[in-house]
Amino acid sequence: MKCIYWKKDHIELIDQTKLPAVTQWIKCEDVPTLGEAIKKLSIRGAPALGIAAAMGMALAAAKSQTTDLKQLKAELKETGKYIASTRPTAVNLFWALERIMKIVDSFEGSVDDLKAAIEKETIIITVEDEKMCKAIGDHGATVVKEGWSILTHCNAGFLATGDYGTALGVIRSAHYQGKKIHVYSDETRPLLQGARLTAWELGQDGIPYTLIADNMAGYLMKQGKINMVVTGADRIAANGDTANKIGTYSVAVLAKHHGIPFYIAAPYSTIDLKIKSGEEIVIEERKPEEVRFFQGVQSAPADANVYNPAFDVTPHELITGIITERGIMYPPYTDSLAGMHLTSVNQ
Amino acid sequence: MKCIYWKKDHIELIDQTKLPAVTQWIKCEDVPTLGEAIKKLSIRGAPALGIAAAMGMALAAAKSQTTDLKQLKAELKETGKYIASTRPTAVNLFWALERIMKIVDSFEGSVDDLKAAIEKETIIITVEDEKMCKAIGDHGATVVKEGWSILTHCNAGFLATGDYGTALGVIRSAHYQGKKIHVYSDETRPLLQGARLTAWELGQDGIPYTLIADNMAGYLMKQGKINMVVTGADRIAANGDTANKIGTYSVAVLAKHHGIPFYIAAPYSTIDLKIKSGEEIVIEERKPEEVRFFQGVQSAPADANVYNPAFDVTPHELITGIITERGIMYPPYTDSLAGMHLTSVNQ
Repeated sequence: MKCIYWKKDHIELIDQTKLPAVTQWIKCEDVPTLGEAIKKLSIRGAPALGIAAAMGMALAAAKSQTTDLKQLKAELKETGKYIASTRPTAVNLFWALERIMKIVDSFEGSVDDLKAAIEKETIIITVEDEKMCKAIGDHGATVVKEGWSILTHCNAGFLATGDYGTALGVIRSAHYQGKKIHVYSDETRPLLQGARLTAWELGQDGIPYTLIADNMAGYLMKQGKINMVVTGADRIAANGDTANKIGTYSVAVLAKHHGIPFYIAAPYSTIDLKIKSGEEIVIEERKPEEVRFFQGVQSAPADANVYNPAFDVTPHELITGIITERGIMYPPYTDSLAGMHLTSVNQ
Repeated sequence: MKCIYWKKDHIELIDQTKLPAVTQWIKCEDVPTLGEAIKKLSIRGAPALGIAAAMGMALAAAKSQTTDLKQLKAELKETGKYIASTRPTAVNLFWALERIMKIVDSFEGSVDDLKAAIEKETIIITVEDEKMCKAIGDHGATVVKEGWSILTHCNAGFLATGDYGTALGVIRSAHYQGKKIHVYSDETRPLLQGARLTAWELGQDGIPYTLIADNMAGYLMKQGKINMVVTGADRIAANGDTANKIGTYSVAVLAKHHGIPFYIAAPYSTIDLKIKSGEEIVIEERKPEEVRFFQGVQSAPADANVYNPAFDVTPHELITGIITERGIMYPPYTDSLAGMHLTSVNQ
């Protein structure tokens, strides 16, 4: 299952704001409908947004009535600007738009051929993401043993990527290999991505899981009920320090205390060798209402002082391995992550 | 401030089901109104329920129209049975009723004198609880240094006791001594006692606090923002192993990892020398809806598998000290807790 599908004359995407209570698909027959869906966070997650942007360009091309190449190029340039404006901080969105516009700008030929070229590039972007996630999943599954229970935090599944997911990719590969795994999903306050999205995703795929409140993970570990932890990553420094959803650090400390392996699963592109350590990663603080309220229901005094960091940094010494599409990197990360980059340059 | 007040011809109590959005007092002019408040959990917490039960007996006595002692005794017996039925698992409720009924059963004298004797015993029960909490608070405050930030989990404040609280008693004493402390309150999923009750209590008393989601505690500790942890306890075994609200164990492990002192604050009566270790404490599992929903709003798939233990056990080796009204007990707890019991026998 995917969170977004290319249907030639329209795009279909799951409205993630309605999950898990309602599974509702949004049919985007024009780019403004897609743009509104991006703005409303009906679709989120860096790789998923890149794919949505490319599909938006392909849709604009498919729907264009013009027979003039120059006119089509001008229309697509405007569409690109509009899509970029819907989520101005999403790097993957710009990356995908640039990939499409590179083709548009240098294109010579018929209008129909340009439309076909854009559709082809969109499909390539989608398939690349899918392959990347499957590679992460397959590499990660090599460390998962038969019958293991795996804890994950937040959502790094198909709802955040084009397909399959990263941390959930590892879980999917192990499941599809018949390893009889069980997943424990932290609900992940304040935005509850684990409860709303991960639990829903696992349910869709028939992967056995149990949902817990974040503060139950330690007690499960103490009882020997967790064999491994795997989470996604937002940014990985050259020394392996990893920024991910708030709460990841606590889970990593708890795993260390109980001698449980703790893995990060993320695309190679998440590693930023320009950042030496986690010290350099600035942590975004989000608005207090996220902790004071949940979906409009007050859960704390309206004037409560709140600390609401969106992410935390897990130091490399707590991380057993970093799983990417190129393989699993082990400590010392300063060597292994740099080596992985060299490999990529040589490919 | 207290959660329940004796007003001679009625009882006033805060409706805790309405907190923190609305501070609403329930005026109980008869026992059935009090009984409904207990049933609805408008008042909860073991010591607070004991006080409410005693006040209920005093109210029944005060409101009785009879001039016949035998008739009054019969009425009070019925009232006791009714109050006991409102929360049949609350041990403190029975304990308080027994204390009042002991006076009733052996009483000889006038109707007015019996009414006065019951009121007096009710006030003694209330004052004893108040003194106990203040003693816990004052003992605990001796380990709190100027300017410290203190993390607490769940609610062990005046909303659970007659006044002052146990873990929050330590915080109150340190605050009233002018130690310029700051409190971090875990919201405490799934029932959010930290967000709904502790944050509200601290706000009422003007004690500076910051509310966090449970999964943020580790990251705060890593940043050096927590100097000490103090929580309440539901049951303490002879070796110091302590059962308390789910999530306490994770906080204790995180505190150990960061070298932060972790204290338990609880009445002496919480220590059960008949239980050798935490292994013997059975952990209640509560209904999955508490995790699937958040303040009545669905936050997970309706059919999500859920693990929802109400408590966890923190092993004694993670506990720096156990603060009671008799002083602070330190490891080895098998000696110090038993010694404290001997002291009590000799008093």
